[in-house]
Amino acid sequence: AFQGILERLDSGEVVIGDGGFVFALEKRGYVKAGPWTPEATVEHPEAVRQLHREFLRAGSNVLQTFTFYASEDKLENRGNYVAEKITCQKVNEAACDIAKEVATEGDADALVAGGVSQTPSYLSCKDKAEVKAVFRKQLEVFMKKNVDFLIAEYFEHVEEAVWAVEVLKESGKPVAATMCIGPEGDMHGVPPGQCAVQLVKAGASIVGVNCHFDAETCLQTVKLMKEGLQAAKLKAHLMSQPLAFHTPDCGKQGFIDLPEFPFALEPRIVSRWDVQKYARKAYDLGIRYIGGCCGFEPYHIRAIAEELAPERGFLPEASEKHGSWGNSLSMHTKPWVRARARKEYWENLKPASGRPYCPSMSKPDGWGVTKGAKELMQQKEATTEQQLKELFQKQKF
Amino acid sequence: AFQGILERLDSGEVVIGDGGFVFALEKRGYVKAGPWTPEATVEHPEAVRQLHREFLRAGSNVLQTFTFYASEDKLENRGNYVAEKITCQKVNEAACDIAKEVATEGDADALVAGGVSQTPSYLSCKDKAEVKAVFRKQLEVFMKKNVDFLIAEYFEHVEEAVWAVEVLKESGKPVAATMCIGPEGDMHGVPPGQCAVQLVKAGASIVGVNCHFDAETCLQTVKLMKEGLQAAKLKAHLMSQPLAFHTPDCGKQGFIDLPEFPFALEPRIVSRWDVQKYARKAYDLGIRYIGGCCGFEPYHIRAIAEELAPERGFLPEASEKHGSWGNSLSMHTKPWVRARARKEYWENLKPASGRPYCPSMSKPDGWGVTKGAKELMQQKEATTEQQLKELFQKQKF
Amino acid sequence: AFQGILERLDSGEVVIGDGGFVFALEKRGYVKAGPWTPEATVEHPEAVRQLHREFLRAGSNVLQTFTFYASEDKLENRGNYVAEKITCQKVNEAACDIAKEVATEGDADALVAGGVSQTPSYLSCKDKAEVKAVFRKQLEVFMKKNVDFLIAEYFEHVEEAVWAVEVLKESGKPVAATMCIGPEGDMHGVPPGQCAVQLVKAGASIVGVNCHFDAETCLQTVKLMKEGLQAAKLKAHLMSQPLAFHTPDCGKQGFIDLPEFPFALEPRIVSRWDVQKYARKAYDLGIRYIGGCCGFEPYHIRAIAEELAPERGFLPEASEKHGSWGNSLSMHTKPWVRARARKEYWENLKPASGRPYCPSMSKPDGWGVTKGAKELMQQKEATTEQQLKELFQKQKF
Amino acid sequence: AFQGILERLDSGEVVIGDGGFVFALEKRGYVKAGPWTPEATVEHPEAVRQLHREFLRAGSNVLQTFTFYASEDKLENRGNYVAEKITCQKVNEAACDIAKEVATEGDADALVAGGVSQTPSYLSCKDKAEVKAVFRKQLEVFMKKNVDFLIAEYFEHVEEAVWAVEVLKESGKPVAATMCIGPEGDMHGVPPGQCAVQLVKAGASIVGVNCHFDAETCLQTVKLMKEGLQAAKLKAHLMSQPLAFHTPDCGKQGFIDLPEFPFALEPRIVSRWDVQKYARKAYDLGIRYIGGCCGFEPYHIRAIAEELAPERGFLPEASEKHGSWGNSLSMHTKPWVRARARKEYWENLKPASGRPYCPSMSKPDGWGVTKGAKELMQQKEATTEQQLKELFQKQKF
Repeated sequence: AFQGILERLDSGEVVIGDGGFVFALEKRGYVKAGPWTPEATVEHPEAVRQLHREFLRAGSNVLQTFTFYASEDKLENRGNYVAEKITCQKVNEAACDIAKEVATEGDADALVAGGVSQTPSYLSCKDKAEVKAVFRKQLEVFMKKNVDFLIAEYFEHVEEAVWAVEVLKESGKPVAATMCIGPEGDMHGVPPGQCAVQLVKAGASIVGVNCHFDAETCLQTVKLMKEGLQAAKLKAHLMSQPLAFHTPDCGKQGFIDLPEFPFALEPRIVSRWDVQKYARKAYDLGIRYIGGCCGFEPYHIRAIAEELAPERGFLPEASEKHGSWGNSLSMHTKPWVRARARKEYWENLKPASGRPYCPSMSKPDGWGVTKGAKELMQQKEATTEQQLKELFQKQKF
Repeated sequence: AFQGILERLDSGEVVIGDGGFVFALEKRGYVKAGPWTPEATVEHPEAVRQLHREFLRAGSNVLQTFTFYASEDKLENRGNYVAEKITCQKVNEAACDIAKEVATEGDADALVAGGVSQTPSYLSCKDKAEVKAVFRKQLEVFMKKNVDFLIAEYFEHVEEAVWAVEVLKESGKPVAATMCIGPEGDMHGVPPGQCAVQLVKAGASIVGVNCHFDAETCLQTVKLMKEGLQAAKLKAHLMSQPLAFHTPDCGKQGFIDLPEFPFALEPRIVSRWDVQKYARKAYDLGIRYIGGCCGFEPYHIRAIAEELAPERGFLPEASEKHGSWGNSLSMHTKPWVRARARKEYWENLKPASGRPYCPSMSKPDGWGVTKGAKELMQQKEATTEQQLKELFQKQKF
Repeated sequence: AFQGILERLDSGEVVIGDGGFVFALEKRGYVKAGPWTPEATVEHPEAVRQLHREFLRAGSNVLQTFTFYASEDKLENRGNYVAEKITCQKVNEAACDIAKEVATEGDADALVAGGVSQTPSYLSCKDKAEVKAVFRKQLEVFMKKNVDFLIAEYFEHVEEAVWAVEVLKESGKPVAATMCIGPEGDMHGVPPGQCAVQLVKAGASIVGVNCHFDAETCLQTVKLMKEGLQAAKLKAHLMSQPLAFHTPDCGKQGFIDLPEFPFALEPRIVSRWDVQKYARKAYDLGIRYIGGCCGFEPYHIRAIAEELAPERGFLPEASEKHGSWGNSLSMHTKPWVRARARKEYWENLKPASGRPYCPSMSKPDGWGVTKGAKELMQQKEATTEQQLKELFQKQKF
Repeated sequence: AFQGILERLDSGEVVIGDGGFVFALEKRGYVKAGPWTPEATVEHPEAVRQLHREFLRAGSNVLQTFTFYASEDKLENRGNYVAEKITCQKVNEAACDIAKEVATEGDADALVAGGVSQTPSYLSCKDKAEVKAVFRKQLEVFMKKNVDFLIAEYFEHVEEAVWAVEVLKESGKPVAATMCIGPEGDMHGVPPGQCAVQLVKAGASIVGVNCHFDAETCLQTVKLMKEGLQAAKLKAHLMSQPLAFHTPDCGKQGFIDLPEFPFALEPRIVSRWDVQKYARKAYDLGIRYIGGCCGFEPYHIRAIAEELAPERGFLPEASEKHGSWGNSLSMHTKPWVRARARKEYWENLKPASGRPYCPSMSKPDGWGVTKGAKELMQQKEATTEQQLKELFQKQKF
């Protein structure tokens, strides 16, 4: 009896998402940082397939089609390093085919979700109809390939996210919507609680956040969403897919403004134990769709599945190659390594960076901290993002 | 005109090694930390194959068979989590088949190297004949599968490494030998220069170090080996395959004694820029076989290939998805991100850990720092490793 | 023409306060950490006198009598390590005598301020009359010795601070009032803006904060006070006397809850350059009474005077032994040390701790972070500090 | 029965030195960083006197005359910020007078030691007779004032130190000699063991190190001195007076090359607990003259006296204002602060810097790390310091 995403969540099940495809495949050599587009679905399907398999094996219940930034307007921006024949349609179709293929390899229990994300059209101020048309083009592929449900993710503006949800709802399939915002809200200043309300009213059954911030920050944001929904007496399932990087020093716009983005984030990578703490906190907060975004590798997803194994009643397949809380070290020849084969050890360890010449935190670049920009906003009463963008483009600061 | 490893090195070519299979596959869910054995070659050949492909694409000229810890005595130690029918022979054969298959997928220019590593037999004081028999069993498979050359790696005792080299030389194929030691020398106190001399005298054409220490430390050790060879008027090619972790705080026995090993090493992971510095220093030191060990992912290997592209005259395939020194950011919409698209930026960045509650360095566990152990050594005149091991096993400290 | 504190501030002058007596004298061996009482005025007047001289020489315009925690109820708590004959009256009289003596040694331009601080009587819930009687006892000494003005400082509860101001105003002398609170407000939850309004209404001509938080945090709090006064259309001069420790990791109750308090705060000590930044920011914020609290040594006060020398038109006496921005290094024999003789160098230096095994930040102890305490507050509706204190004393958490 | 320095040491007593006058008085406003000369003995005797008193009270058994850099050649270099009438003789005489005055204030049990240090004459290559004449000029004052013994300290070249000892021995008084070198030896490359031998042969009864390095490094150096003396079958008492800064990142020439020197060393300041560890280690190593140098404040000296109170049988006077291992916190109202009133707490605390944007270690400036300098040395065979100095002065690098 195969169950859909809402049946699972409605019955109280924990649904485990997958990890970050663009970051993982960038490290494996198949995605270019900067454009971050998923033409690998056509160019190197075996690499995409293998990553899906690893997440599935690690415990993911959902395979998201690798269609991040796969809107037609975005793909056109990639420049000429990708062959012209790799069209939007081909990328999206291949992504669906690969995900569906892997999903059926296992116990046939994993769901496939088609995903859309923010568009250049919206940022360049195209109107609602134009932006919706962009989403619709991807949706057509998802419908043809009959994915199980849909995700609108990585939106910085709730307005665009609402448009995406409205389009996806045309399909009749369940829709999840996650924004890449922090507790301060979206780029127009709409607070998280209000974002959640708008998304649910637009038709989303599942709301939350993904990307841009670390787990701690994401959970704060989802908490604000939850409170907003409660205040509005709306019901929805909650979802979180944070970064696998520690980013306590982020500004409002998230990790992109950190000086280490995207090529020196290594010291910030979370351990499997950090992920177990995240999974527990997310669960305690009432979140039941728990996954990851950029930086999440298969072993991070496995950590979610292992932390919540008591609640779910089973371990993922990949745990056959992992001892819970380090117990695979219990047979080591050195006693001080054996002493690490226990929960208390890993839970309390404060891992060193091995980088004594480096700091613990960075100051983010950008608007968030630019005194000039702030003053300009105050002087010019440039309170909207649009006005700021215009000032910005005119190189006033 | 296909060229062997020695022809390449003799002609002055740079040969790029591959990265760390056990660590990469542990994160992907196919290898168990603790045993670290490579039964994945039989259980999940597609995962091993994909990783080989990624390293090849990243620029590796050598595909090492995934036969780390694949000696019969070691595989017997894995416990019962691996099916009995997965024999030593099967693991080694599958490893050869996968490596050879991938090697021929490309321009047919990559070499396949069969590898052996330290054995439990040596540690439990088996005699020379017994230990050699263990290596010979793996060598038989390598000969049957006709690999291009052989590597004896990850040896802590030069005595055992010499035995391995002697066995491998029986094949008539070129032999490389790397030890997992630091500048203080092997576990019996033999200094690196002397280790190198013994290995070359035993028949190794290429000598160096792999694993256990970070790049900076490994290069110091190889430098000592080079000086030892020069003093003895011996010639050999030099090789280095360090960790992809910063470990300035290691003791004599390397990263295993660090409290973070093996499950919380994330903050120590090197960036691609760290690897470029390593590649340049290694080259300047005269090393021409340059690769990586635990922690080296495909993008790290690509960084070696990109740093040495001027010398080698070409970029690896995976560079089609990578802009040199971050230049793929040059089209970013935010000016402060565009400002990161240059060498000086990444070269000088001191990346933050995002972990203000964590230290920069750790004190290693173990003998190296155990006052009790040291006193015992002094009191008891237990100057040999063997005696210490006996005392140790008797739980005297 | 000797001018009083208000004449100076009214005319736009910058008034420089002094530094932290209890911390400085603890390090010199005359004050006991824990009790923090000032019996040294009687026991070792030469030590107190010397510290006053150093601050005066460094640029202080105000010599605060060393009467911190010199209320009768507090002195009785010191236990038996101080001779009984050292009465409250003697301590306060000696403090006045010493301050007045040093003030007249110089150009006779420094003011002497009598100070009172929070009392055990208030914390043990004595009533308004009783608490006021305690302050009045100290005030009698200040009147007899004819100090120039009065300071009520280091109050955690605005209610008690108001009582203190009311008593001090009975004298007819100008009164300054500073609280040891952060941006979250006083211990009953009264926000800084409202605290400032209440203090001004009670008669304070100067309001601000001292102690408990670092400069950055203190300036945020004073900013909130300023905004509160503006909103209430009240006028007062602003004052800040922060810690000389970096404490970004403080909770609501300040540095006392940090694990390093009070005996391992060394790595947090601010440099003279940090103080110059503080002085500039304070000035820009409109604060004109600028001094320091615990940790401020004479050279820190000199840094205020040097930073604001352009505005004030002169350097302090102690600058004869200090080159502005390190220019005393310009004759050094080593060129790399000479290169440090400039503002840009010291302004931008990120000083290392020399402690690679230590973290950058700590988690504060105490209520602020005690989950049990928070839950108790929620469950029991123990919304007042008083109730919490009772629960606390009953060892409920 | 008043006992001299050698009687005390010979009988096995621990002798506690004093702390760092130039650094402490720089912070108090009486010494200029850069010149570091002690004209304060004439200009502000009360400030010097008070600091002597504080060290005496903290437990010092020796009051060193404040004659650091008080040789005639050095004082002439100070530039014109000191009045001309403040002659070398006056500075040295005043220093003796102040120290002797304070020594007799107490139980008349403290010794007064006259001190000389390295000279500009030696650095500018004056000959032995000229350099000795410089020392002899100071010695004349010490004889006239009849100090108890003599210290030659802060020498980077053993040759100059030997000359100083030879001059001081002319007096017939006991002589101590300490060099400001690390384990790598003096600036001409003479190893510590050999330095010690030369100093003892020249007449020093006490040898060791002071300044330039942290406690850990200094103890390593003294250990090498001890071993050198043992190998040469020479006997001498050992002495250490290290920095009160953590400097694990120093190069060969010590803390002067650290980027933080001298105005941003705050994060490196040692706590009293660090000093207790130092005192214990020094004692265990056989050192019996234990004091401090730059950065040592009175409370640091008290920490030596408290750590060694069991061996010495008494606490210093200043301990009346200090509870051993934080026990003065045992009456605190907050239970989490009371929990800090114990040895284990302070011993194991890893204090945070409160500076998440700063690193843990720095790269030293200067020759030690200048690749150009090293190459020059190799190419030019400029193996002597003198030659290097000449090259250096010619601005070749």
